[in-house]
Amino acid sequence: MERNYIEQMRVHAGMSVGELVDEMGKAGVFGAGRLYKAVEIYQRIVSENEVFKLVGVAGALIPGGMRKILRDLVANRMVDALVLTGANITHELVEAFGWRHEKGIASVGDAALREIGINRIFDAFVRDEAFEGFETKIKDCFSAIDEEKRRDGLGSYELMREIGMMLNDDESILKTAAKNEVMIFCPGIFDSILGLHIWMFSQQNELKIDLRKDLQKMIDTYYETKKVGAVFLGGGVPKNYTLQAAMLTGRALDYAIQITMDRPEPGGLSGASLQEAQSWGKVKPEAEWVDVIADVTIAFPLMVAATMERLTRKQEEP
Amino acid sequence: MERNYIEQMRVHAGMSVGELVDEMGKAGVFGAGRLYKAVEIYQRIVSENEVFKLVGVAGALIPGGMRKILRDLVANRMVDALVLTGANITHELVEAFGWRHEKGIASVGDAALREIGINRIFDAFVRDEAFEGFETKIKDCFSAIDEEKRRDGLGSYELMREIGMMLNDDESILKTAAKNEVMIFCPGIFDSILGLHIWMFSQQNELKIDLRKDLQKMIDTYYETKKVGAVFLGGGVPKNYTLQAAMLTGRALDYAIQITMDRPEPGGLSGASLQEAQSWGKVKPEAEWVDVIADVTIAFPLMVAATMERLTRKQEEP
Amino acid sequence: MERNYIEQMRVHAGMSVGELVDEMGKAGVFGAGRLYKAVEIYQRIVSENEVFKLVGVAGALIPGGMRKILRDLVANRMVDALVLTGANITHELVEAFGWRHEKGIASVGDAALREIGINRIFDAFVRDEAFEGFETKIKDCFSAIDEEKRRDGLGSYELMREIGMMLNDDESILKTAAKNEVMIFCPGIFDSILGLHIWMFSQQNELKIDLRKDLQKMIDTYYETKKVGAVFLGGGVPKNYTLQAAMLTGRALDYAIQITMDRPEPGGLSGASLQEAQSWGKVKPEAEWVDVIADVTIAFPLMVAATMERLTRKQEEP
Amino acid sequence: MERNYIEQMRVHAGMSVGELVDEMGKAGVFGAGRLYKAVEIYQRIVSENEVFKLVGVAGALIPGGMRKILRDLVANRMVDALVLTGANITHELVEAFGWRHEKGIASVGDAALREIGINRIFDAFVRDEAFEGFETKIKDCFSAIDEEKRRDGLGSYELMREIGMMLNDDESILKTAAKNEVMIFCPGIFDSILGLHIWMFSQQNELKIDLRKDLQKMIDTYYETKKVGAVFLGGGVPKNYTLQAAMLTGRALDYAIQITMDRPEPGGLSGASLQEAQSWGKVKPEAEWVDVIADVTIAFPLMVAATMERLTRKQEEP
Repeated sequence: MERNYIEQMRVHAGMSVGELVDEMGKAGVFGAGRLYKAVEIYQRIVSENEVFKLVGVAGALIPGGMRKILRDLVANRMVDALVLTGANITHELVEAFGWRHEKGIASVGDAALREIGINRIFDAFVRDEAFEGFETKIKDCFSAIDEEKRRDGLGSYELMREIGMMLNDDESILKTAAKNEVMIFCPGIFDSILGLHIWMFSQQNELKIDLRKDLQKMIDTYYETKKVGAVFLGGGVPKNYTLQAAMLTGRALDYAIQITMDRPEPGGLSGASLQEAQSWGKVKPEAEWVDVIADVTIAFPLMVAATMERLTRKQEEP
Repeated sequence: MERNYIEQMRVHAGMSVGELVDEMGKAGVFGAGRLYKAVEIYQRIVSENEVFKLVGVAGALIPGGMRKILRDLVANRMVDALVLTGANITHELVEAFGWRHEKGIASVGDAALREIGINRIFDAFVRDEAFEGFETKIKDCFSAIDEEKRRDGLGSYELMREIGMMLNDDESILKTAAKNEVMIFCPGIFDSILGLHIWMFSQQNELKIDLRKDLQKMIDTYYETKKVGAVFLGGGVPKNYTLQAAMLTGRALDYAIQITMDRPEPGGLSGASLQEAQSWGKVKPEAEWVDVIADVTIAFPLMVAATMERLTRKQEEP
Repeated sequence: MERNYIEQMRVHAGMSVGELVDEMGKAGVFGAGRLYKAVEIYQRIVSENEVFKLVGVAGALIPGGMRKILRDLVANRMVDALVLTGANITHELVEAFGWRHEKGIASVGDAALREIGINRIFDAFVRDEAFEGFETKIKDCFSAIDEEKRRDGLGSYELMREIGMMLNDDESILKTAAKNEVMIFCPGIFDSILGLHIWMFSQQNELKIDLRKDLQKMIDTYYETKKVGAVFLGGGVPKNYTLQAAMLTGRALDYAIQITMDRPEPGGLSGASLQEAQSWGKVKPEAEWVDVIADVTIAFPLMVAATMERLTRKQEEP
Repeated sequence: MERNYIEQMRVHAGMSVGELVDEMGKAGVFGAGRLYKAVEIYQRIVSENEVFKLVGVAGALIPGGMRKILRDLVANRMVDALVLTGANITHELVEAFGWRHEKGIASVGDAALREIGINRIFDAFVRDEAFEGFETKIKDCFSAIDEEKRRDGLGSYELMREIGMMLNDDESILKTAAKNEVMIFCPGIFDSILGLHIWMFSQQNELKIDLRKDLQKMIDTYYETKKVGAVFLGGGVPKNYTLQAAMLTGRALDYAIQITMDRPEPGGLSGASLQEAQSWGKVKPEAEWVDVIADVTIAFPLMVAATMERLTRKQEEP
């Protein structure tokens, strides 16, 4: 069997993130090898023509500090469509409307936090006042949407664009997406605080959400594209939704990356290897894919920074 | 500090599952201690009057062999409402319509499986023919629903009851639930093969799903109840949806059990401790709760069998 | 491809542990399927003639309540040799000498625990007084060993037998092993409180530990046996030590079970699949093996109780 | 409660590893926050005077590409003592003697690998010829040690220094450590291929290993130092051994970092939080410590590169 030696990694002061990832590639095994492969694949996703670029996001990644990285992917068109959870949208809008997430203090108990109006997301905090502010502002957004549209029913991607257009925050993912014609899908929208407010608003006003429109749009988009590449940050609805569209349309993914800490053995889709998706016709047999077993807040910034560096290097080549 | 000694567990041939769990309680620490606590809590959930009993299910637990256990919980009214993923419903209906899941053979590659029409869920298989059969049968179900209802829009819980009433399989969760007036919510319905068929059917027929109705029903139910107890098998949409209704209505859970292999550190809700939910007002400060870190297919049957044994023991007491 | 259907599990009040495991076998997938397979394999290990039966134990399983289960395996000769960590021996002797482990109280902080002389092992406690008692008693044990033996150097398995012979506690693993001629190896003995006391005692007294003798004994034992079957509870030194003896002697394992929560992806031996051991010649290509991804305190009592039940069933057959 | 806002991370092409870690610190939560904290702590460990710097290594990190990073830590005296497993030493010597580890090919089965003499470590390979070469060379090393020393018995740290002095490979951890008077402890030496060769050699030659000497040396070292800082890559014997010396000497750690993928819930020491060690008096109540839940091959190079950058920045300050 041909020999493909592991080169021992070397690090030094001042090395760039791209250089670090190159060292990881020399070793090429365990987690480091997978992270390198993720950069290789993501570089191809964003460099090749005719690849439709999807990023699926599950988990509390806005409190986790990923908001501007996702926003910059949108601004740089390193993604064509985001698939987010309702919680992701809620957290994004909390910040877009001017409130903030906070670093938590471990020693305060959860019952005590409740008494002072603080909600905990592992070691991050978000205050009741943020959600109260969210409630007022999101109602204004809903009201500002043309009533006919609201009566006909909007797909989640249409609602996201409508809201995105109204925002004043240039760091907003939704605003940047609306401006750059990047679609944002939220197929689990009713499973979120945002969804609760849609329901409450619709008690006294017109506001219909028609999730069949999302499926239609997603499927049309798959049909229009030659190749598909997806990055999954966590599993959940965004991963399943993106993969099932691939299955339905017969446009299996050409490139796929997932970053997760979930395990495959219990059988759930969130922890399932992307390899399994090949049996479903969701990922091509010849696709390039990798499962990175890592905390997204560590691996994703590393992957994006290294990919950006490679793109710049390439431009600078004579 | 008062001493609460760990008794060493002892096992013997022919011991009942309840006896095994009692031994786990004597030790009372690590995973065994948590599983014992889950039985303690579940016994209270099903024994106390005026507790509304919710079970949330994420992950491929029908292929994982949990179908009849869930069905029997419904038949015995050990649950008042199930919150399922769209995939759970799809797998349940595949079996209700007469197809089966199969034990997988590891040595076949995923590309080879695709060629012979087999879809893999870790070490379980499901064939294309099952999904083809599902397609035909589910369309018949949709067609058989009163057209006015379809035009007005059904909540997912209404759709589940409609379909459940049409099924011939006594082992069906949906049929048993329809008969026993146990509600089945599917808030992420469009993120599933079932959802795809709703969309396809609605291209040429009336079929509106109105997920606002689910929120309404869920919230009304919370308001009508004195106490709430929930069991979460996996996290995902069912966990989040159940907890957010608790938050919105101010009816925080009195009893809560989760069984999961996900970790808390990455910050996602699926892996979050139920303790965290206390800061959100989703679980009461004085609630009894436990996180069981285990594969559901091991821990859940054990928990249910032990609880059933306790309930029988109690009835037999003079 | 031949079809091997998943039967849905069914549980009922009063069912035996063996019946529960049989149900798990009908499903046959995910964690339940693996646990069933573990029982199948362990039944063969203990039923077949000429199988040398090893159990390797890592992790705090005496505080975790497994002491009497391990002791009963020894008493029933369901094991021929135990490979333990130094901490396992220390915890076993703490109990044999009359002290106890306790169920911990979560709300006490670790700094506060230190002030009151309590050492924490996740949610179990052990007091300083237990270790102080251990110190006195273990010195007495050392002193009671024939000085010539101490000067010549004892293998860890010899030391364990010497100590086991001196104990008064019938529930002791070491005493039961000494009486039943079950060997106990402790190759990492110096990495433990026991090891510290060996070192301290040897400052002023003769007490040499010669770990080369353990290797000699282990290897001789492998050579003398026709077949080898091993159960690994956790990984660590016990797993590695047992497997390397198999490699060195060319007596690869015929049967192997591991129960662990560690993951394979980071590349460490503790989390490695037993399949990998086939490439090393540590497990036979045709061996029966299974990786059970579970908390030992849940899965191991279940496996032992179910195996005992099967053995009894078999005896009762006409 | 005072507010400590989460700043959203931002990445850009060409940013240095240190800049990336600074961004992680701005977010300050989840995995990214922990990795930042690890850099903060490691910077203090290597910058402050009078801190004794320990690095414990478990898991196959030489095949995983960490050899030169560890070697450079030694060369730069960013560590004063390494505590390694026997397997770490074996892998290090395989490379020092001129053989190599290789990137594995997934599609080859383990039985097939055995037939062509390849041993698998997750996705890394090492050939039988490497171990055969190791056998010859290590015997030469043993023979070259002064016979009186061999008869008297060497501590593992003495054996490592003896072997280190004989090596020709400047990239060797052992050679660099011998030259720089960095100690290497291997308390579990007999649980390794190296240990097997010690045993085999000692069948016909003098070669005694006296692990009591290691304890003596470790303990003397703790007593001589004002402060102690430790980095644990994985758990296992190196973590336990380092912490128990702290406990015995009453010199609890002032700084502690662990990087692991193991979980705390099953109760084993490898996955235990460093916080727990405070109850044992192994880590000071006021210590700075962090548990980084990550693959070592990703997080450790990142931590070292960022720390090196900070040290350089500091030197460059006017």
